[in-house]
Amino acid sequence: MTSTLFIGNKRYSSWSMRPWVLMKALNIPFTEELHVFAAGLRQPAFKTFSPSGKVPTLHHGDAVIWDSLAIAEYLAEDHPPVWPSDRKARAWARCAAAEMHSGFPAIRDQCSMNVALRIELGAPDADLQRDLDRIDHLWTEGLSRFGGPWLAGEGFSAVDAFFAPVASRLLTYGIELSSEPAREYARRLLEHPAVAQWIEEGIKETAREPMHEEDCVRGRKVLKDISMSS
Amino acid sequence: MTSTLFIGNKRYSSWSMRPWVLMKALNIPFTEELHVFAAGLRQPAFKTFSPSGKVPTLHHGDAVIWDSLAIAEYLAEDHPPVWPSDRKARAWARCAAAEMHSGFPAIRDQCSMNVALRIELGAPDADLQRDLDRIDHLWTEGLSRFGGPWLAGEGFSAVDAFFAPVASRLLTYGIELSSEPAREYARRLLEHPAVAQWIEEGIKETAREPMHEEDCVRGRKVLKDISMSS
Repeated sequence: MTSTLFIGNKRYSSWSMRPWVLMKALNIPFTEELHVFAAGLRQPAFKTFSPSGKVPTLHHGDAVIWDSLAIAEYLAEDHPPVWPSDRKARAWARCAAAEMHSGFPAIRDQCSMNVALRIELGAPDADLQRDLDRIDHLWTEGLSRFGGPWLAGEGFSAVDAFFAPVASRLLTYGIELSSEPAREYARRLLEHPAVAQWIEEGIKETAREPMHEEDCVRGRKVLKDISMSS
Repeated sequence: MTSTLFIGNKRYSSWSMRPWVLMKALNIPFTEELHVFAAGLRQPAFKTFSPSGKVPTLHHGDAVIWDSLAIAEYLAEDHPPVWPSDRKARAWARCAAAEMHSGFPAIRDQCSMNVALRIELGAPDADLQRDLDRIDHLWTEGLSRFGGPWLAGEGFSAVDAFFAPVASRLLTYGIELSSEPAREYARRLLEHPAVAQWIEEGIKETAREPMHEEDCVRGRKVLKDISMSS
């Protein structure tokens, strides 16, 4: 059975990045179908391949899996390394990935993903600082509890893929987490071949969607646009 | 190994309701620890049992599972009926539950759960109508595709538990979905013994948290407070 992963722009789509990075990292074969975002909030054209009109969506044979976390669980049934083999590490990884899936509203809202820009954030407000502290704590906890180098132990798993967009955002907005293990992990994540490939391809993209661009900048200073210099 | 499920007020906590209903419905034994919400948005006291400071949190032996969807997956490892046995139904159920986990912002925001109140909503705005249409579509699709009476087929599974708070909200705010199968399903869900028990216990609760009360009312007319008449 063939797998097709429908994704949005690599420059912007943090949700799409997660299963793409996971499948690349674990060598799960798939065909990529990139659909660039049309102007504005809604994507009615995406309804032709995604029942919620959102990306990512995985087609596997005639099964359609339209949510990033459900894609991870679906893949895990055929590919056990999607989650750690140790039960406690697996429970922790699922909690951390699910917390990312429904939480961290200030990071999502104030630090939209844009893999090519470097933006001057200024001092984080209390909400953003609380989210960043929680990321810091969660990463440090996973690394110390399961021994690293990945969040839930030796193998790169879905929880790492779920935090890959956060690592990209830290870079874009020049944010340094306060603990050294968390900072090191962010660098390690960005250097993972699957993560690096997504970012590199996102930097090379030429499509622009005004609302996504504006959502990243919001009057803040753009220090660098890497796509212009490459 | 003993299981303890930490939950918030049954009157308000839609997140807590999900694993509680799931475990009751599937006869998975657990001890309930209800902690009422302190005034305001954050619950620092919850950090003693939940690493994110949020409910629900399941303690199983010395494992701590602090997210509702991760709890479902954790339980599914020992209790396969948590998800449908058919692979396609299972994939669909996980997608729908995950969509509820990260989505439906207008329902969450405008129709906070309060199992004891009946509130005059007035005409839904475009965002709320879009969320309601999506619920309607999703429920109708599940019921017709997998044959009912539950969303992903014959057995009550995690996807039903994930939508139980939505059925309670429809009742509170007097919302009728447009398709008859979806309306019937909402009634069926409210009559499920586990759902009915949660709501009954929520109605009997005497603790009140001002922010949660205000968030439900917001200047709208309270038609009835069932806890006053019971």
